[in-house]
Amino acid sequence: MGEKIIRINMTNLTTAIEAVPAEWAALGGRALTSTVVAKEVPPTCEPLGKYNKLVFSPGLLTATAAANSGRLSAGFKSPLTGGIKESNAGGTAAQKMERLGIKAVIIEGMPEKDTWYSIHIDKDGATIKEDVEYIGKGNYELYNIIGEKMGKVGVLSIGPAGEYKMAAANISVKDPDGNIRSHGRGGGGAVMGSKKIKYITVDDTGGPGITLADPEKFKTQARIFAKALLDHPVSGQGLPTYGTNVLINILNEAGGLPTKNFRFGTCDHAEKICGETMHDTIVARKGNPSHGCHAGCIIKCSQIYNDADGKYITSGFEYETVWGLGANSLIESLDDIAVCDRLMDDVGIDSIEGAVIMNVAMEAGILPWGDGKGTIKLIDEDIRKGTPLGRILGNGAGSVGRTYGLTRIPVVKNQGIPAYDPRSVKGIGITYATSTMGADHTSGYTIATNILKVGGYVDPLSKAGQVELSRNLQIATAAVDSTGLCIFVAFPALDIPECFTAIFEMINARYGCELDANGVVEFGKYVLKTEHEFNLAAGFSNKDDRLPEFFEEQIPPHNAVWDFSDAEIDEFWNF
Amino acid sequence: MGEKIIRINMTNLTTAIEAVPAEWAALGGRALTSTVVAKEVPPTCEPLGKYNKLVFSPGLLTATAAANSGRLSAGFKSPLTGGIKESNAGGTAAQKMERLGIKAVIIEGMPEKDTWYSIHIDKDGATIKEDVEYIGKGNYELYNIIGEKMGKVGVLSIGPAGEYKMAAANISVKDPDGNIRSHGRGGGGAVMGSKKIKYITVDDTGGPGITLADPEKFKTQARIFAKALLDHPVSGQGLPTYGTNVLINILNEAGGLPTKNFRFGTCDHAEKICGETMHDTIVARKGNPSHGCHAGCIIKCSQIYNDADGKYITSGFEYETVWGLGANSLIESLDDIAVCDRLMDDVGIDSIEGAVIMNVAMEAGILPWGDGKGTIKLIDEDIRKGTPLGRILGNGAGSVGRTYGLTRIPVVKNQGIPAYDPRSVKGIGITYATSTMGADHTSGYTIATNILKVGGYVDPLSKAGQVELSRNLQIATAAVDSTGLCIFVAFPALDIPECFTAIFEMINARYGCELDANGVVEFGKYVLKTEHEFNLAAGFSNKDDRLPEFFEEQIPPHNAVWDFSDAEIDEFWNF
Repeated sequence: MGEKIIRINMTNLTTAIEAVPAEWAALGGRALTSTVVAKEVPPTCEPLGKYNKLVFSPGLLTATAAANSGRLSAGFKSPLTGGIKESNAGGTAAQKMERLGIKAVIIEGMPEKDTWYSIHIDKDGATIKEDVEYIGKGNYELYNIIGEKMGKVGVLSIGPAGEYKMAAANISVKDPDGNIRSHGRGGGGAVMGSKKIKYITVDDTGGPGITLADPEKFKTQARIFAKALLDHPVSGQGLPTYGTNVLINILNEAGGLPTKNFRFGTCDHAEKICGETMHDTIVARKGNPSHGCHAGCIIKCSQIYNDADGKYITSGFEYETVWGLGANSLIESLDDIAVCDRLMDDVGIDSIEGAVIMNVAMEAGILPWGDGKGTIKLIDEDIRKGTPLGRILGNGAGSVGRTYGLTRIPVVKNQGIPAYDPRSVKGIGITYATSTMGADHTSGYTIATNILKVGGYVDPLSKAGQVELSRNLQIATAAVDSTGLCIFVAFPALDIPECFTAIFEMINARYGCELDANGVVEFGKYVLKTEHEFNLAAGFSNKDDRLPEFFEEQIPPHNAVWDFSDAEIDEFWNF
Repeated sequence: MGEKIIRINMTNLTTAIEAVPAEWAALGGRALTSTVVAKEVPPTCEPLGKYNKLVFSPGLLTATAAANSGRLSAGFKSPLTGGIKESNAGGTAAQKMERLGIKAVIIEGMPEKDTWYSIHIDKDGATIKEDVEYIGKGNYELYNIIGEKMGKVGVLSIGPAGEYKMAAANISVKDPDGNIRSHGRGGGGAVMGSKKIKYITVDDTGGPGITLADPEKFKTQARIFAKALLDHPVSGQGLPTYGTNVLINILNEAGGLPTKNFRFGTCDHAEKICGETMHDTIVARKGNPSHGCHAGCIIKCSQIYNDADGKYITSGFEYETVWGLGANSLIESLDDIAVCDRLMDDVGIDSIEGAVIMNVAMEAGILPWGDGKGTIKLIDEDIRKGTPLGRILGNGAGSVGRTYGLTRIPVVKNQGIPAYDPRSVKGIGITYATSTMGADHTSGYTIATNILKVGGYVDPLSKAGQVELSRNLQIATAAVDSTGLCIFVAFPALDIPECFTAIFEMINARYGCELDANGVVEFGKYVLKTEHEFNLAAGFSNKDDRLPEFFEEQIPPHNAVWDFSDAEIDEFWNF
């Protein structure tokens, strides 16, 4: 298929175009980044040292006409967790890479000289340029400058947080409107910063584009797939209308909305921060309540959130960010939270980790509970300038908690626990505990089945069935994360049989292969096991598959506790 | 023998006197603290949470006439390493506890109320008192106040660092002159702070004292033992004359004196900071070059170091502190280093970790290399006041390095690597890698055999024999740490057969038991295995028995590298 690997060596400052090894031919997205990391990165290496690698890979369906297929995976050994990491995002880089015939970009080594570089990727390969002009700049300003100079290229970049090699630093990616999406979790921005790369541009002009083994079959399956996305109530109505923030009221209702650093399962001011309020605010201010993060997205859960004067503040304003700052840190002003979201994108901090950072900072007494303006200042001054306090914060919720001698630190494998209480939604607790990624809701989103009743129903308050539910979803997610499809296609895929079939049939039509439902499961298992083996070789054990001690406390309103035994959790890996 | 356990519950604020369980009867010091921690502390618990315990235990020979037997062990799960920890110190508390018939003090639980307490231990047991008066005070001022109010009681305390629950916080103990010794390593001060105990006083008035099963035999063996200590050149001449700082010139000569954060094995200004210079300075300023840390010490490696005006600055001014600030941080003024040593004792920071903290801080650019006055300020202002920078520093060298995105971080199991380069003295590298304590020279001091040619000679630059050497010394040390004897008795014990025999014969004469040489080895193995099993249950694996990646670099003058394979290191635990 003429696909290639771009290998960029930052020690020698050389680049190479390599043929795709046969054993990687059937891989893409997370399956490929995790395979490359597992094969080429020594598991015990320093995450910010010369032996770590940063791997980008579009998914198997990226740049096709398949709806919602424009996600890019970034893989590396995480400076936050110490384990393997895959973090995927929309934006424009994935499709441009795929149209250039690039199966993966592998960045390795580390420069000896104390300077900065940028990388440009186009039809002729990759070039490295010493480039210190934009050091210190936030992502918004950087994207404006690059847009003016280079037009509609794809951009991957780090903000000041990545330059400081903060463990919560993300890798930003330009979206179709020139705004910011993020490979958020796990500190990929610090890895990119350690390799002294401020930004990467991707120009697909003159690229070979993609070819389909069976265009007719692809078209048919892509239609079935798109229809399912539009038909399903979650992907067709809830997410397009209210964005992911539709979940504030749903989780509040379920008693699973962690509030004041996981003390309560409901939040008194949910009405002020919920998706419905956000939607009405956006409409009143002439923003856009439904906006796609990449070309071909038909769910459009993103939005353009303006201030009271109708001026753009942020987009990709997600439930988890609103939860973490709104409920868990008790900030009542949605506008303050929106400014924080923008600033985290600009300085280049994962907005989930950033939200958990702030609730731990409030726990530590660094600022008062609910202090929106104080939170803005911490991001815009301390993290941006890399003050000592900013360094503590930028290194993640675990860093803040440990540095201040706390025990109420909501992290698993040192990654901040997101927006669903594991005591009152027990399936997600199994995902947090066992995921190879550290606490990560997206790696096995049991909220679908525990709360939204998608793919059946498993009582969130009972232990029964949660391990199996999380395992099945983690396996399926590992497969979906390899396709370039947005994880939200899982909602229709779980409920509409022909939607699930369409996914692997589109892959078959793209590559001329014969994947079936069983093959998808085996593929997902392969990805998880590859990642798990890397983590074990890096020094993890089953003792790392545990939630923090404080989850033994009851959480109202259900007075639920985390009551899985070690043996019950460890059952997860028996597959 | 009428011995007892004092149990102090800080949740309920109750104390109890318990009989010694039969299985603990033959244990003391490190053997007992590690046994209690392994039995009673859940290995995966939060080190600063309510399930951790803080255990004090005098050694098996403490308060006898055996020379150098006045050491106290403190045991806990370490907030620095996440593993088991034993840290022992001289001072006056051990002998007073033993004379009260106390085999161990076990402090458990955590108060719910946000206040502070002190504990008083006397012949009637222990009492807990709410006591906030001295919060924020340094150890020197605290000891003056307690001395004035209570006379010659033993004192264990924390400084501001322990109040902040910093992972490098030590537990201080009053020495016979009212100055400060430290249970330095592993963050015991943070554990004591988490239990909200500022200080513990011990009054042995009216205590039962100790009885000897065979007083005549004891007297004979104690004489043999004392003579050996005085006869051996290291314990009888080198240490009494120059203190531990005699090692600056010796290690510099051997090319094993880590300099500028482990870049070089020799230091150009060694002459300015060496033991010989220190000795002459002390004598010229009418200090005391040879001073014991506890009653009955005849090695007297401590000293009283005065300033140019003859005013006391510090005592217990050790080689590792002088190395870390002098060679590894390039501070050339011994007076500045002495002030740092005093301030670390006063704020309650382990002076070894503190020294490594400062060389990592210089690596991070927080202050310039060699900046003695800047180092003083960081300790006296930032750590003392708990500023954000002070919190980063106070949490250890690993905290500083990670927070600033470094890879050149000299820690093992997150504990700072002390004063002997593991590439040019390879035996100590095996000790750093494998010790249950994290990087800890005292746990298997191969410098004795690699450099001082005590107990034979193993070429420091060759891999041959190092694993066996470290293993034998770690086993022996675990036994010695259980006796209450100072580790420096190992020098004569390794070279003078009747000295080694005298140690177990004194134990036999004290308790009427029949320990022999083989029994000592089995005892040491029991201690190490108990600790190792705790660490494995806490989540450690053989991947934690590794040195940092940067030791692959050559170190001049020998251009030695760390070249042990994983399998060679892992051979350590085959016993």
